[in-house]
Amino acid sequence: VSVKRAEIRAPAVRRRRGELRVALLGFGHVGRAFARGLLGPYREALASRKLRLRVVGVATRVHGAAVDARGLDLTQCLARVEAGGCLASLHRGAPLPSALAFVRSVPADVLVELTSLDPLRGEPATTHLRAALSRGLHVVTANKGPVAFAWSELKRLARRHRCELLHEGAVMDGTPVFNLVSRCLPGCRILGFRGTLNSTSSHVLTRMEEGASLEAAVREAQAAGIAEADPRADLSGWDSAVKGCTLANVLMGATVRPREVRRRGIVRIQPETVRSAIERGRRIRLVVRGSRLGRRIRVRVAPEEIPLGDPLSTRGSDAALILQTDLMGEIGVYERGGNVEQAAYAIFSDLATLASLGAITGRGWPRSREAT
Amino acid sequence: VSVKRAEIRAPAVRRRRGELRVALLGFGHVGRAFARGLLGPYREALASRKLRLRVVGVATRVHGAAVDARGLDLTQCLARVEAGGCLASLHRGAPLPSALAFVRSVPADVLVELTSLDPLRGEPATTHLRAALSRGLHVVTANKGPVAFAWSELKRLARRHRCELLHEGAVMDGTPVFNLVSRCLPGCRILGFRGTLNSTSSHVLTRMEEGASLEAAVREAQAAGIAEADPRADLSGWDSAVKGCTLANVLMGATVRPREVRRRGIVRIQPETVRSAIERGRRIRLVVRGSRLGRRIRVRVAPEEIPLGDPLSTRGSDAALILQTDLMGEIGVYERGGNVEQAAYAIFSDLATLASLGAITGRGWPRSREAT
Repeated sequence: VSVKRAEIRAPAVRRRRGELRVALLGFGHVGRAFARGLLGPYREALASRKLRLRVVGVATRVHGAAVDARGLDLTQCLARVEAGGCLASLHRGAPLPSALAFVRSVPADVLVELTSLDPLRGEPATTHLRAALSRGLHVVTANKGPVAFAWSELKRLARRHRCELLHEGAVMDGTPVFNLVSRCLPGCRILGFRGTLNSTSSHVLTRMEEGASLEAAVREAQAAGIAEADPRADLSGWDSAVKGCTLANVLMGATVRPREVRRRGIVRIQPETVRSAIERGRRIRLVVRGSRLGRRIRVRVAPEEIPLGDPLSTRGSDAALILQTDLMGEIGVYERGGNVEQAAYAIFSDLATLASLGAITGRGWPRSREAT
Repeated sequence: VSVKRAEIRAPAVRRRRGELRVALLGFGHVGRAFARGLLGPYREALASRKLRLRVVGVATRVHGAAVDARGLDLTQCLARVEAGGCLASLHRGAPLPSALAFVRSVPADVLVELTSLDPLRGEPATTHLRAALSRGLHVVTANKGPVAFAWSELKRLARRHRCELLHEGAVMDGTPVFNLVSRCLPGCRILGFRGTLNSTSSHVLTRMEEGASLEAAVREAQAAGIAEADPRADLSGWDSAVKGCTLANVLMGATVRPREVRRRGIVRIQPETVRSAIERGRRIRLVVRGSRLGRRIRVRVAPEEIPLGDPLSTRGSDAALILQTDLMGEIGVYERGGNVEQAAYAIFSDLATLASLGAITGRGWPRSREAT
């Protein structure tokens, strides 16, 4: 009910040509880096493609929410949230009792979903996406959860409502993975993949190679902002399993869910094991693999010994993914670092895609056979 | 004169919708691998995009040439050339006294340029491309020469005649490099790059790490079909310099030519140097770098010590390229192997691009700011 009212009360705002009205759900590290991008680094790129992004809503978990159809002042939003304050006084319209009310009422073209994920259920992101697509909003998300847990349902929903559901940031931040396959490997079938995709594990194993204990390495990674306060989803391989399902579902047409993944993490890895591998010219990394077994697609996660020189023998928090294709053999992509700016760029990239799809009414990409 | 006649004498052939008429200039390893692809692996991919590629001409250096507007029988072409025979009896039309006459008369939509290159001058490929573009043919080439030596001229020519000039295979075969930047990194400026792009050098250095001498390693690489009979362009860094210019010109908007590249090859590298690096956990690789110095763009080639775990510490004939971007930090692409099928896929990929550009009349790619 409050939904309709919010829309009605919003002042009449003319949409300009080449403008995309954006709602940000989640304003943590990535959301704020994206906002800072809009205020600075993205400006030239947007101007050169005559694209205007107007942020009409920002909703946070603990700093309130604000909606303004005329566009929010991002400098103010950033200042308030970073000072621990509240966005409520920037809000124009009916009260927003919940994140879902925000999704259902914000006068946007696209919902950018950036809430933190319950890794075991893929929520609340999946619920938010369902609500957004159902009311005809395009969706951009850096959350791998919805794609891993509810891909076929959300894809159907998007198709029914003629919306785009973009998620380049779900794996390896803004490094082209899904776009690489759908735009740059025409005709290729993805036969399998292998990757080191969990930056916490890679960072911890790198430090253990240098002599640290698992516990000390985790504490360091937490202090450096690489590992979460609760690192269990990373070290247990769950995060890698979710990413593996995302890749298998989108790139290989699978319907695998994280619980079906055979998974072994790095929690019980001993420092001696890590160092003995290094002495033999090898490196232990947490590897996620996707492969076809007849008509079934299997995803596995386990620590593996990687020969130095193999593209998966990454250092620090670098990530690498190798794709096995039918027509082009093995190719890989690599991301150095993996910072919030690189995660924020995934959002920018998906919004640029949306803008260009709008211009060509969604047709014309040289899509690969199994891409979305 | 013979040009016009060849076109007039060809039997009237109706062009079908979704069909691209292809002329192959050069029918060596890559051209024949592409032909074998059309007879097998590419079929499903072409059918799924309702695209028909009709090869209407094949010209070789020593096995003659054949043009048939109704389409050539590729099985026959392959059999004849591989048996050391001649294509002439398959030819329908006026005599073709030269490769240039072929380019000027073949009744095609696109010229696929695959002749072997004089690496010092970028010829005859550049002349062929000029002739093709001037008569309104699209061009697909796996030759890096024209892009390194005559990029701005050819680009202008293509624009004037409303033709596409595609060259994904010029660097790292069919691995997305140019398409990656233009389609998957919207808004990104390429600040610099570094890569190990010469498979002969990488292969030779890998074997030297294992104890072989430079000479023995080169002979092995020649026997394995990786190195050319004359490996000087590879070992001297010239091939890397040409690739570096190609990357700098297309991705960074430079106008650098191979002679302007500061270049050191691996000819004088001692086995002890290679092995002592390995003992210190490092690997010597021939690296090409592009960087901005104020408004100038510089390309350099030199052997460098790469720490193991760095994406450039590739093994065997694998290739890797790291791009430094403004908005997305450092990302990389990697190619395993580098065989003729991967080179042939570049041609397939460019032809798929042409087909899709035709469908959307050339607009709508989310191009990067400095891509072509």
